[in-house]
Amino acid sequence: MAEPPIVTLLTDFGRQDPFVGIMKGVILTQCRRAQLVDLCHEIPPFDLLGASLQLRAAVESFPAGTIHLAVVDPGVGGSRRPLVACIDEQRFVAPDNGLLSHVLQGAPRWRAHAVTEPPWSRHPRSTTFHGRDLFAPAAGLLAAGEPLEAFGPEITDPVRLSLPRPTTDAHGVAGVIVWVDRFGNCLTSIDRPALTALAGQAPFPLAVSVGRRSLGPILHSFEAAGEGGVGALIGSTGHLELFANRGNLAERWGLAPGVEVRVEPGERGSAERAPAESREDLA
Amino acid sequence: MAEPPIVTLLTDFGRQDPFVGIMKGVILTQCRRAQLVDLCHEIPPFDLLGASLQLRAAVESFPAGTIHLAVVDPGVGGSRRPLVACIDEQRFVAPDNGLLSHVLQGAPRWRAHAVTEPPWSRHPRSTTFHGRDLFAPAAGLLAAGEPLEAFGPEITDPVRLSLPRPTTDAHGVAGVIVWVDRFGNCLTSIDRPALTALAGQAPFPLAVSVGRRSLGPILHSFEAAGEGGVGALIGSTGHLELFANRGNLAERWGLAPGVEVRVEPGERGSAERAPAESREDLA
Amino acid sequence: MAEPPIVTLLTDFGRQDPFVGIMKGVILTQCRRAQLVDLCHEIPPFDLLGASLQLRAAVESFPAGTIHLAVVDPGVGGSRRPLVACIDEQRFVAPDNGLLSHVLQGAPRWRAHAVTEPPWSRHPRSTTFHGRDLFAPAAGLLAAGEPLEAFGPEITDPVRLSLPRPTTDAHGVAGVIVWVDRFGNCLTSIDRPALTALAGQAPFPLAVSVGRRSLGPILHSFEAAGEGGVGALIGSTGHLELFANRGNLAERWGLAPGVEVRVEPGERGSAERAPAESREDLA
Repeated sequence: MAEPPIVTLLTDFGRQDPFVGIMKGVILTQCRRAQLVDLCHEIPPFDLLGASLQLRAAVESFPAGTIHLAVVDPGVGGSRRPLVACIDEQRFVAPDNGLLSHVLQGAPRWRAHAVTEPPWSRHPRSTTFHGRDLFAPAAGLLAAGEPLEAFGPEITDPVRLSLPRPTTDAHGVAGVIVWVDRFGNCLTSIDRPALTALAGQAPFPLAVSVGRRSLGPILHSFEAAGEGGVGALIGSTGHLELFANRGNLAERWGLAPGVEVRVEPGERGSAERAPAESREDLA
Repeated sequence: MAEPPIVTLLTDFGRQDPFVGIMKGVILTQCRRAQLVDLCHEIPPFDLLGASLQLRAAVESFPAGTIHLAVVDPGVGGSRRPLVACIDEQRFVAPDNGLLSHVLQGAPRWRAHAVTEPPWSRHPRSTTFHGRDLFAPAAGLLAAGEPLEAFGPEITDPVRLSLPRPTTDAHGVAGVIVWVDRFGNCLTSIDRPALTALAGQAPFPLAVSVGRRSLGPILHSFEAAGEGGVGALIGSTGHLELFANRGNLAERWGLAPGVEVRVEPGERGSAERAPAESREDLA
Repeated sequence: MAEPPIVTLLTDFGRQDPFVGIMKGVILTQCRRAQLVDLCHEIPPFDLLGASLQLRAAVESFPAGTIHLAVVDPGVGGSRRPLVACIDEQRFVAPDNGLLSHVLQGAPRWRAHAVTEPPWSRHPRSTTFHGRDLFAPAAGLLAAGEPLEAFGPEITDPVRLSLPRPTTDAHGVAGVIVWVDRFGNCLTSIDRPALTALAGQAPFPLAVSVGRRSLGPILHSFEAAGEGGVGALIGSTGHLELFANRGNLAERWGLAPGVEVRVEPGERGSAERAPAESREDLA
């Protein structure tokens, strides 16, 4: 027997209502053998940028062919298109509102189809819960083997959000906090390539700061900051991350998405704050 | 090989303890191939009415034969009976305390059996966690193929809660808020039939109000209220729902279950608040 | 076809990020047929003792051979060892930081192997998310059939935390609150054997107290305390538990882990607080 298809779910539905469970019932009605995996349902309501970011963080850990059902849909019941897409061997079902922006960014190969009024969607369809009435049935049918072209015409212009990118100037690299995780770690828009380019020109270790607060050089691990110490490192998604070791930095300093973060060549003194072996090798 | 049986779980156990995971271990011990689906575990502690309502909202999206394990059980360890039941081709395992009230309401066919002291329940059985020691083993055995009659004698008098019903008088229809969802949308006890009957007699579009606040006519979608606007529509369960478009109405107005909601024939002026094409067609 | 292997997950990752879903993607990449079960992800950040306690509470409800992936890992990226272990026919993947202390306590048979730099772990491995890069691949490989010895050398000195044990003196038994559950029930370190020993010497029913507050004798069920009444009973893990019937004791009295609880022989008067049939039989 063929391996069971994997269907992941990412929404801003939370857990206090049965919305997610209901979508799973619809998927299983179409494909009883599906492996269902929750990615995240605590996306802040209507936060398309955060959802897009977390979707990208997650999909690379799934086998080729996985179906990712993403529903953050402030325009439900309005005129936004529903999509099915194949991007780098992963498949997606989502409203066409920018949810796939991070996944599409830099993707070498992708194909997307609009989902047009289909015979399989629920009748009467609600105007408030397309997760149940439209997206979950589409995901279930994909899992059962329907090809993308069965859902509607191909499109070439999916909505793409303007993504925060690091900017480099004479003083260094600037970016913003894009996500605060459960531990209070602050993920930024500054990626490894921007840091490597800067490090190539800098005489001393890079120094990270947020507002007037300094976090010192870029470290190799949480522990390198010492118990309770603050620091910055390159996190599991390849982006700069600010943290308090065994503490909650976002709470301690009142940080949130949108706050600016800077990385600049350090001064001689700053290099002394952390021994060389605890620093990240950016060369 | 036969399709894997689906077992859903709905409780007020929350997620901070391993209670739900433990029940799943017990179910899988009886039936390794079960497809386990969480409906909701954030039912407010001991809220039988809310749990009953959400159970009904969920079950219609599952295939016939699905087993729904529902444990909201303030009387655990006391004298309430445990039940297994088949209602409209869905199966249920629950304490006999009213949890199945909404599902039973208007069901054309149902059958229920008391679960009597069974050889398969855990010994010694705790008095505080029948989810683990009694309900999960029963759900697992149902999934493994045991028929209802194997669990104990048939009963005809399951506990039914008094459910809030809309009332119609000379001025219109009155109901209450019965659930506030993650987005702050307020689900009411006023269903489509009550609204359709009222609309048939009304010269102008219906007008919705909560206390002294007016929400205007019944709209067709969230977007019809405009960005940030408040409104009312018929939600995904077929009941009147109050909302703030891309906002949180319950927080904004301080609404909660039990608050009264009224629908009355509108005046000529009220019809101008929303163009006809954005309004729900109740005819 | 062989039965699908069960893999449970217990972490302090919470639900607001996709960390848990990402680990599941990695596990399914190694073993597509795995039955994945969430035990608990709301362990307070870095609370090794609480995680260890909840792991023990959960594992006994799973079939032999189940794989339990536990990641509470304040030392991630540092020098702590990763482990795979087999304890009483259950299998475990966890950092070697004391997470398995309760499971190891009193286990008649166990075997543990350090996980050494393996060809199957993710390259480059992050220093912040070993759940994804090291522990989940190990769990997936165990599920796919790899034996413990494939992961690295056997070890005999896994880290064990100092576990709170009840102490008995001339006046009675003393212990501490070790966990507060969703309902505000307070689980203590006082187990049934300690109570049975004390009851054997006591002329009157035992009396439970926390600080200057008395909870009366040990009851048989929540309901025996009457509506809203407070009480103590032996909970589903075999330990003394303090509760308010249909209420939240921890909130009402401001209780939290670490607070001392005492059990002493009652006075004649205390016995009258609850009829004999509602009391636990400790004989």
